[in-house]
Amino acid sequence: MRIARFSIDGNVAFGAVEGDKPDELVLDIIKGIPFADFELSGTKVPLAPSDSQTRVRLLPPVLPNKVVAFGRNYAEHAKELGNEVPEAPFAFFKPSTSVIGSGDEIAYPSFSQDLHHEAELAVVIGRMCREVPRERVKDVILGYTCANDVTARDVQKREKQWARAKGFDTSCPLGPWVETDLDPSDLTIQCTVNGQQRQLGRTSEMIHSVEDLIVNISEAMTLLPGDVILTGTPAGVGPLSVGDEVAVTIEGIGTLTNKVIKRG
Amino acid sequence: MRIARFSIDGNVAFGAVEGDKPDELVLDIIKGIPFADFELSGTKVPLAPSDSQTRVRLLPPVLPNKVVAFGRNYAEHAKELGNEVPEAPFAFFKPSTSVIGSGDEIAYPSFSQDLHHEAELAVVIGRMCREVPRERVKDVILGYTCANDVTARDVQKREKQWARAKGFDTSCPLGPWVETDLDPSDLTIQCTVNGQQRQLGRTSEMIHSVEDLIVNISEAMTLLPGDVILTGTPAGVGPLSVGDEVAVTIEGIGTLTNKVIKRG
Repeated sequence: MRIARFSIDGNVAFGAVEGDKPDELVLDIIKGIPFADFELSGTKVPLAPSDSQTRVRLLPPVLPNKVVAFGRNYAEHAKELGNEVPEAPFAFFKPSTSVIGSGDEIAYPSFSQDLHHEAELAVVIGRMCREVPRERVKDVILGYTCANDVTARDVQKREKQWARAKGFDTSCPLGPWVETDLDPSDLTIQCTVNGQQRQLGRTSEMIHSVEDLIVNISEAMTLLPGDVILTGTPAGVGPLSVGDEVAVTIEGIGTLTNKVIKRG
Repeated sequence: MRIARFSIDGNVAFGAVEGDKPDELVLDIIKGIPFADFELSGTKVPLAPSDSQTRVRLLPPVLPNKVVAFGRNYAEHAKELGNEVPEAPFAFFKPSTSVIGSGDEIAYPSFSQDLHHEAELAVVIGRMCREVPRERVKDVILGYTCANDVTARDVQKREKQWARAKGFDTSCPLGPWVETDLDPSDLTIQCTVNGQQRQLGRTSEMIHSVEDLIVNISEAMTLLPGDVILTGTPAGVGPLSVGDEVAVTIEGIGTLTNKVIKRG
């Protein structure tokens, strides 16, 4: 099931996405929230992204308490930035204030001249958990979505820890929705800028698997429903400019699209 | 005014702390929340920390959306760990799941053998803000509290980014309350372990002032009411063991006390 979060006439709701053609998608409104038992209401509204007059607006698929992101989890990407491949995973945070949805705008930060895209598979946590054993990892996952770990590369090089370089407002596009029925182990992950391919990889190239990463981080901290884990980016990262349209597509999920604007 | 957050008979409230003797403190319950205009109710309850049967339990003084912490902001501390003093400030995050209050227990993480205390002045943000000009910084601050940036030093050395080393559950004691009337520029900051002094410094030794730090981070991201900024630790950091009682005292605020236990 694809679960979207959206606003309709000013109210926020979750809905199950039905249909395949981008202009003919329909949302079956969910009674309750997807982090507990829920039912579909049967009340359906159209999700027509090309219609600016629509009552329905897609929101980030979750509002995470925290986003935990892993660095250098694809060997080719580590090498392209001249870095060694780390033996153990390492993680950093992106704050909830950095999260935007598909169709929202990435605001080029005033303190950077080298903004980069990083396409990533995002794991959405479904239930509160800590010290998750490897064999129970699947039970704590609600599903998967696309992420762009937008990075001020120049600031990242200057500042030893990455709060500003990877935590500025709009630096964490997530969406378009959460796919709950998916095997994440071997999916195509792709990033285009203005339709030109920049990144192309497969999740099977991850050094540490989704299971490894959730065991690693939940050993240290409690994960809450709606928390998001970013699993690293494949090779091909590169610059974004004001006016660019950047799209992250993951096989079996969909496409997350954002335009880059000048910060107002 | 000292504003505490506490539970009483299962409900959560804020209160103004009255009195000076630790065993004779009284809370005047606040109508509403301290992030907007509020009134004191005149209803008073005793806050007696030594009485385990009390109906009142102190909570972390705020429940932050994010904690932004600055590294190496005291030259003597940077040197004691063999690090250079950075030219510009750099920041990392501690997640909301790491926050505990005074009197709560620090759980020694299973993946570390070298847990350290780091006493810090914490700034509590009072209103939503972004790109705060230097002369407006005082307007976005609610007040100040004590913090302990508890750190798994061995993990910090191994992992390039510090999410696990400084973000594990219970790694961010805050409290005991927020002091709203305070000049933060030259205060004594002290850390004791089992009554023995470990850290002693003055906030005037900060390389980057509270104003500098808030200008720096708000240039990148929106700060929300209740967000917390940790301003760095003076020299004297050192190990904590299971059974230790660690106390952070800041002049004009009070004392944040936590016991270290084995993680259950």
